[in-house]
Amino acid sequence: MSKVVTFGEIMLRLSTERHLRFSQAKFFAASYGGGEFNVAVSLANYGVPSEFITRLPNNEIGACALKEMRKFNVESKNIIYGGNRLGIYFLETGAGTRGSNVVYDRSNSSMATIKKGEIDWQSVLKDATWFHWSGITPAISESAAEECLQALKVAHELGITISSDLNYRSKLWQYGKSPSEVMPELLKYSNIILGDIDTAFFMLGHDKVNPNYQDQNSLPALYTKLFNECPNLKTIATTLRYSVSASHQRIGGVLYDGQNLYTADVKDVTPVVDRVGSGDAFMGGLIYGLLNLPNDKQRALNFAVAACCLKHTISGDYNLVSVKEVENMIDGDATGKVSR
Amino acid sequence: MSKVVTFGEIMLRLSTERHLRFSQAKFFAASYGGGEFNVAVSLANYGVPSEFITRLPNNEIGACALKEMRKFNVESKNIIYGGNRLGIYFLETGAGTRGSNVVYDRSNSSMATIKKGEIDWQSVLKDATWFHWSGITPAISESAAEECLQALKVAHELGITISSDLNYRSKLWQYGKSPSEVMPELLKYSNIILGDIDTAFFMLGHDKVNPNYQDQNSLPALYTKLFNECPNLKTIATTLRYSVSASHQRIGGVLYDGQNLYTADVKDVTPVVDRVGSGDAFMGGLIYGLLNLPNDKQRALNFAVAACCLKHTISGDYNLVSVKEVENMIDGDATGKVSR
Amino acid sequence: MSKVVTFGEIMLRLSTERHLRFSQAKFFAASYGGGEFNVAVSLANYGVPSEFITRLPNNEIGACALKEMRKFNVESKNIIYGGNRLGIYFLETGAGTRGSNVVYDRSNSSMATIKKGEIDWQSVLKDATWFHWSGITPAISESAAEECLQALKVAHELGITISSDLNYRSKLWQYGKSPSEVMPELLKYSNIILGDIDTAFFMLGHDKVNPNYQDQNSLPALYTKLFNECPNLKTIATTLRYSVSASHQRIGGVLYDGQNLYTADVKDVTPVVDRVGSGDAFMGGLIYGLLNLPNDKQRALNFAVAACCLKHTISGDYNLVSVKEVENMIDGDATGKVSR
Amino acid sequence: MSKVVTFGEIMLRLSTERHLRFSQAKFFAASYGGGEFNVAVSLANYGVPSEFITRLPNNEIGACALKEMRKFNVESKNIIYGGNRLGIYFLETGAGTRGSNVVYDRSNSSMATIKKGEIDWQSVLKDATWFHWSGITPAISESAAEECLQALKVAHELGITISSDLNYRSKLWQYGKSPSEVMPELLKYSNIILGDIDTAFFMLGHDKVNPNYQDQNSLPALYTKLFNECPNLKTIATTLRYSVSASHQRIGGVLYDGQNLYTADVKDVTPVVDRVGSGDAFMGGLIYGLLNLPNDKQRALNFAVAACCLKHTISGDYNLVSVKEVENMIDGDATGKVSR
Amino acid sequence: MSKVVTFGEIMLRLSTERHLRFSQAKFFAASYGGGEFNVAVSLANYGVPSEFITRLPNNEIGACALKEMRKFNVESKNIIYGGNRLGIYFLETGAGTRGSNVVYDRSNSSMATIKKGEIDWQSVLKDATWFHWSGITPAISESAAEECLQALKVAHELGITISSDLNYRSKLWQYGKSPSEVMPELLKYSNIILGDIDTAFFMLGHDKVNPNYQDQNSLPALYTKLFNECPNLKTIATTLRYSVSASHQRIGGVLYDGQNLYTADVKDVTPVVDRVGSGDAFMGGLIYGLLNLPNDKQRALNFAVAACCLKHTISGDYNLVSVKEVENMIDGDATGKVSR
Amino acid sequence: MSKVVTFGEIMLRLSTERHLRFSQAKFFAASYGGGEFNVAVSLANYGVPSEFITRLPNNEIGACALKEMRKFNVESKNIIYGGNRLGIYFLETGAGTRGSNVVYDRSNSSMATIKKGEIDWQSVLKDATWFHWSGITPAISESAAEECLQALKVAHELGITISSDLNYRSKLWQYGKSPSEVMPELLKYSNIILGDIDTAFFMLGHDKVNPNYQDQNSLPALYTKLFNECPNLKTIATTLRYSVSASHQRIGGVLYDGQNLYTADVKDVTPVVDRVGSGDAFMGGLIYGLLNLPNDKQRALNFAVAACCLKHTISGDYNLVSVKEVENMIDGDATGKVSR
Repeated sequence: MSKVVTFGEIMLRLSTERHLRFSQAKFFAASYGGGEFNVAVSLANYGVPSEFITRLPNNEIGACALKEMRKFNVESKNIIYGGNRLGIYFLETGAGTRGSNVVYDRSNSSMATIKKGEIDWQSVLKDATWFHWSGITPAISESAAEECLQALKVAHELGITISSDLNYRSKLWQYGKSPSEVMPELLKYSNIILGDIDTAFFMLGHDKVNPNYQDQNSLPALYTKLFNECPNLKTIATTLRYSVSASHQRIGGVLYDGQNLYTADVKDVTPVVDRVGSGDAFMGGLIYGLLNLPNDKQRALNFAVAACCLKHTISGDYNLVSVKEVENMIDGDATGKVSR
Repeated sequence: MSKVVTFGEIMLRLSTERHLRFSQAKFFAASYGGGEFNVAVSLANYGVPSEFITRLPNNEIGACALKEMRKFNVESKNIIYGGNRLGIYFLETGAGTRGSNVVYDRSNSSMATIKKGEIDWQSVLKDATWFHWSGITPAISESAAEECLQALKVAHELGITISSDLNYRSKLWQYGKSPSEVMPELLKYSNIILGDIDTAFFMLGHDKVNPNYQDQNSLPALYTKLFNECPNLKTIATTLRYSVSASHQRIGGVLYDGQNLYTADVKDVTPVVDRVGSGDAFMGGLIYGLLNLPNDKQRALNFAVAACCLKHTISGDYNLVSVKEVENMIDGDATGKVSR
Repeated sequence: MSKVVTFGEIMLRLSTERHLRFSQAKFFAASYGGGEFNVAVSLANYGVPSEFITRLPNNEIGACALKEMRKFNVESKNIIYGGNRLGIYFLETGAGTRGSNVVYDRSNSSMATIKKGEIDWQSVLKDATWFHWSGITPAISESAAEECLQALKVAHELGITISSDLNYRSKLWQYGKSPSEVMPELLKYSNIILGDIDTAFFMLGHDKVNPNYQDQNSLPALYTKLFNECPNLKTIATTLRYSVSASHQRIGGVLYDGQNLYTADVKDVTPVVDRVGSGDAFMGGLIYGLLNLPNDKQRALNFAVAACCLKHTISGDYNLVSVKEVENMIDGDATGKVSR
Repeated sequence: MSKVVTFGEIMLRLSTERHLRFSQAKFFAASYGGGEFNVAVSLANYGVPSEFITRLPNNEIGACALKEMRKFNVESKNIIYGGNRLGIYFLETGAGTRGSNVVYDRSNSSMATIKKGEIDWQSVLKDATWFHWSGITPAISESAAEECLQALKVAHELGITISSDLNYRSKLWQYGKSPSEVMPELLKYSNIILGDIDTAFFMLGHDKVNPNYQDQNSLPALYTKLFNECPNLKTIATTLRYSVSASHQRIGGVLYDGQNLYTADVKDVTPVVDRVGSGDAFMGGLIYGLLNLPNDKQRALNFAVAACCLKHTISGDYNLVSVKEVENMIDGDATGKVSR
Repeated sequence: MSKVVTFGEIMLRLSTERHLRFSQAKFFAASYGGGEFNVAVSLANYGVPSEFITRLPNNEIGACALKEMRKFNVESKNIIYGGNRLGIYFLETGAGTRGSNVVYDRSNSSMATIKKGEIDWQSVLKDATWFHWSGITPAISESAAEECLQALKVAHELGITISSDLNYRSKLWQYGKSPSEVMPELLKYSNIILGDIDTAFFMLGHDKVNPNYQDQNSLPALYTKLFNECPNLKTIATTLRYSVSASHQRIGGVLYDGQNLYTADVKDVTPVVDRVGSGDAFMGGLIYGLLNLPNDKQRALNFAVAACCLKHTISGDYNLVSVKEVENMIDGDATGKVSR
Repeated sequence: MSKVVTFGEIMLRLSTERHLRFSQAKFFAASYGGGEFNVAVSLANYGVPSEFITRLPNNEIGACALKEMRKFNVESKNIIYGGNRLGIYFLETGAGTRGSNVVYDRSNSSMATIKKGEIDWQSVLKDATWFHWSGITPAISESAAEECLQALKVAHELGITISSDLNYRSKLWQYGKSPSEVMPELLKYSNIILGDIDTAFFMLGHDKVNPNYQDQNSLPALYTKLFNECPNLKTIATTLRYSVSASHQRIGGVLYDGQNLYTADVKDVTPVVDRVGSGDAFMGGLIYGLLNLPNDKQRALNFAVAACCLKHTISGDYNLVSVKEVENMIDGDATGKVSR
């Protein structure tokens, strides 16, 4: 059976409830999450063996993150321990015309202070079939970027499928390098990329082109530029997100495999319970779809879009839904009937 | 003054808050409810004397259910005690594209293990003017179905108005009989039935016809089939529910009295705070309307529809609204202004 | 720098959470608010020095209100102490078709029992540039109305700008006088009035005219009547509020300065987290706009409308937003994106 | 079967949780209580029919109080409606060396503004066997004191047993009369009085004597003075309370019937979950004991003391314990074992 | 490394918070526990590989229990699925003189309806070194008792150490057999028994002897009777529990190995946060001690007693403490200093 | 009037509720505190003007800390802004035999990264009469120690009274210097020191002497050594703390002024609601006492001890009590009676 390994940072997430502003909160809901871990949880829920690699502090807060991984059935045996703190992010959940706000407090975390070579990637990846990373890891510190590169080289040598979520975060990339100095070398190992065209162009050092996703005929040419620069690339997908308000999103998707362009209908998602992690839910759905439906890319894309939609209804960073729930939605039951 | 007696099961309801999935919940909100009890609460709120008949366990959880009845002014003096447990249902409240989920844990409850003849219906019904039951009671156990039949026979003899909510639940009916083996005998005592046409056809053993409720001309013929099989039937009503999403319902209603067809405009209900029990709210409104406005069936139907709409805004199983609040809505004030 | 002084009552607000009805609540959220105080908080958030004048009881509940003022940086040094109780209001927050309900318990509060002359307005207002009051204060008691008049006379003498929010509350005005007996004398000192035309006509003793705010050409003539009766009036603004449901409001605004009529586009606000205080948020935004953009009344109005919209997303009486957040919304970003 | 009628005020109780100070509370727990109502709840829990007479406002907060009475099976059919507000008290629960603090906000409540003659006592008391009142009612307003006197005269005429809890509250008695001007006339109808000797002396206009409850021989002479001034007095009981800290109380009791002095051992009560209402729990236990064990005054006193001790472990104003639980404690099981 | 397998039922635990009575609770804290599972969690916390065997329903509530096992690192791979429901118990946590109360609702649970032979014990136990069960499993149903016997036979054949906690629950044993009909056959496989002498005598069909644990000289003779009837018995231990109140326990222990009697000093435990599961904490500590300190039975006993004491400070069924925390307490640091 | 300036770090405090372990918490209570800020709050509550100097990040979390200062009336106008994060500490509150646990996450905080000279101490201290600091500030970073020294030099030049709390935290002092390298230079400016003798000896580079605080005759000689090394020292006080358990502390105090030794009786404090900050409460009480009762050192010490005791009953870092409450306790009312 396939095993998917993801690599990145898991943080303590401290969020206000009921749309309170930070200054109104006497309590923070405490949960744990991070882009690549969220993908691993999605896959575990779909029954795909998944493992998360990170660096945790050897304290009680790190132990809580570890318990969370175990609870959601994500393998944690190859995690390494060191550094002083678990990264934190504060989340104020918006509503309507007021957007959510994230305050990062992740500098100097155990993951950011990882030292190159601390992880034995040959051992970690020896029985994996898929490796997933995202643009967040090379954004948090130079050593994390270096370790990411080590992982990619080993995965590539071992012939493991590599997926990459571009995940650009403007509040990161504070250590003195820009994405275009770091990302091209990393992305060239990718077999699958998730991201919008302009983010990819930006990370590869090109000018943005402001693509029109409604004009599907125009897209293959743009995606082809990415294929040209990423020699291992087989599939590129983009989440289409139209933000009507913080409480109303419209979600669709596009996938290009070098030959055909697949699109999924845009769906209304309202209300939004929690949109953080919905991109990771798309990624988790896409990996599941490509693993299980290699010959039906349309349904793989549909699966990713439906998974992403469902995530918006779930509190916390990760998508706690089953394959059956996603499939019900693909097959038309998005009307939220009571099951009884 | 009229007194309405309802008969059925009251359960402990354990629900997650804020749309949490079961696996995220550290707390369950504890309340009490069940179709026929919910109808009794509606009526008590409207000032109609109402009484609930059930079988409760002689333990602290049963005592909590009893206190809830008292709190909402539903007479409980004829409740019988026995059996080992109060039935339970778990509720995970959905949002948007994710529907709510009910997990029943009501087997072997005190009500399901009622023994035929335990209730002295002559005594219970002697000063009642209306008896209400629903298709849930005969679905939980054979003895409950038998006791239901006893009640109906006595009520019929005493000339009491009998209303029936078809209330089909696919997760029940586990004791070896199908609805069509049990329901026809029970329904023949009904003076008022609430349910959609296909559910009625199914319970009476007929093929479904997929009625088109938009085509009002087609409905009398279909309803007439029910009148033909239920010799005491005077009124049949159907709640029209269009589920846009778990957070957005559209509610209307149809009523046929053998001569005229009445329809109520479909209203948007969004957001949905809690839709469980909204059918019971319709039933409670309908009984109130037919009792108090026997000559204005249109307004009786409107009252039922407005009551149903309002219920969606209220947490818990029952409809905590006053006659004045329902009437304000019928009379056009559905805009949710602040009263101050 | 400008300093704005507001005068009125601050109350303990006891509200149910998650749309619970009063009878379902085991807890009340405790906060503090009141129209004129809410305006002061808005301004403090915008960086405008603001001070609140009221009368508080010398007990622990009054001390809580004082701490709230300090927390939100509203000057409290001229508050007077006396009387027996802080006024209270209970709030049941509606949803969808069910409106919110306010139960006032503010009779005999420390503010309502203020004695004429207790406040030394010459001292209080000596370094103020703006004085704000609303129609609530003269509605709570005769002595409060009298003290309000004292304040207005002193403010007028000192050449301070005076703004008035008409704020009609039908549940108040219980002390034997009607608005038209009290308000005309008070309003004649106003330089800025916020309110709709019919409320103004009613308070000035005229018949209502049911103005059509869509027909902008018709408005100047109506506003002119108010200019004629309020000799100091320079600006009058009206919040346009269309209530689709308790969870969906549509908000716009009109401003007339005696020469030009300015209008702001109507915006959809959904969901509504808390609409109490949204009028005060409009007022706070308008004062900020008129103070900081005296020559750009269109943007001042836009600021007020955007501030009002944002308030609907925030729990509690007051608008906890920054100038930057309001300006982002004016400049087009109302789509609620995550900032990270 | 005996029916006990109690008369007094029920208030909304707003308390901080987990020993928070008022200034730390974002929520108040909302419950309902008052001395005489608390006695009625105790009795209902013991299976004694009990009825509460008060005056409630005709608003949603009054309706909540009514629902609470129903929940706990206290008859409410003779309650009258009028006035503007339910009285409120705020409670900050202390711990250890910090005592609890009560802030009353009960002036001008519906009960305080009762008008003499509003209650038809002949009708109310016609099937009662016991009438209970306390010194709180005559302390809240002159008209409440007058109505109390009416009740006592009628109860006396009808030969109903009358019990009185002296319940002196120094923060009340604000309407211009002192206890010694009002209480003697009321107390002369009492058959049973609960209170300590000095409170009784004070209310009857005598100097305090600082009785030594350890010196039991000295007590009959002191109690006899009360018998001399209260011609109908048959029994007087005193709760002995030694306060080690807010979290540790020591509780005993004394009862004198004109002939014999009964004493109950002092018991340690720690921790204290909530001591408000523990005096009412003593009173409720005493009435139950005297009603059911008229010939075993020692056990009646023991019942009162044990009931009082148990109350300290229960949140809220009233004592939610069964006869069996009190008897288990009297019979020696105060060790708090788990029942399973 | 040693692996301990435990076998029994895990239940959903629904408990009131803050000492509320059932009738006051609007929420139940939801956790999961059961005697033998609690032992497995203790061991996992101590770093001992542990596995739990049970039968779970194939529904969302069973899935929650499974997630809990994973979170606390208890192996769950050999759990079987079937039946309809997870057993439930309701817990009302007492305080002071009021004991806690457990209401069981575990009849017909998936575990109680296990069918003999459903578990392949040869496979389950093949790499185990220790098997633990308790007297609760044979108390819930005849088939559970039979499956327990199967397990014991296989464990015995495989030479695995067997520990038994007598765990008598008077509210169980409802299926028609008494302990003395069932337990002797099961206990004869035991190598270690935890329980008091009279419970053992009762389960083995003997009269109780009311042993005096203070008189240590008298104990070996009594324990020897148990050694005589349980041919494989090597060690028997008893938890000494003196219940001062629900909030104050005094805990000690005795251990007899056929030759020497070991005793541990009685320690004061106050306040009690949660005493449910403290016996399981003793058992978990004892297994850890006997596994790791086979030649220091005194310290093994001390470990068990300290673990039991610490459990009383922790909410929920299981003992979330580390070896280091238990050892700190054994070594004298029970003074609760802040670690910082 | 005196103004006290305190200097140090304020942190976000994230604590579990109801004695939960970190791994059980789904919520953290969020408050703000730090030794020197806590002292400032104590003083503000006593009516002493107090000001806090620190360095805050320019983000929403820093803004929350600022609002907390304002709420509790601590002047914040001289706070400087810079750096990236507010320091955090996690608190797991113990009970009984389990101590509380603090996990610091304060490295690289805005305060730790303060740059020498950022604060204009001449301006800050120009109207102060008292300056307070503690051993925590020089423990967090070298630059913080340097800035502390700057403050002390300026305060000393200006003739301001300087108080120092030794506050040794073994988990701090991570930047490469030991207390004995840093503290002697700082302590030499102190006029008042709070700390135990051995901590002082350790910080000054001497061997510990394990003083016997019961043997009062032995203490002056030991304190005199400190007077000898701290040329400006006038008063040294020690909090006596005997920890019976996490829930039961015994608190006393000693004060030496170079001539006389004052001692305060040891008081039992149980239960302990929250003991974090109780040393700061002692310090705050001592400053108040020395400021207001310069000639009654016994009462000043008593005030400090009583303040410390009361703090244990209050959640959060700081002591929310009034002078009157402390004085009531000094004057003998520690029995926790209800005030009503």
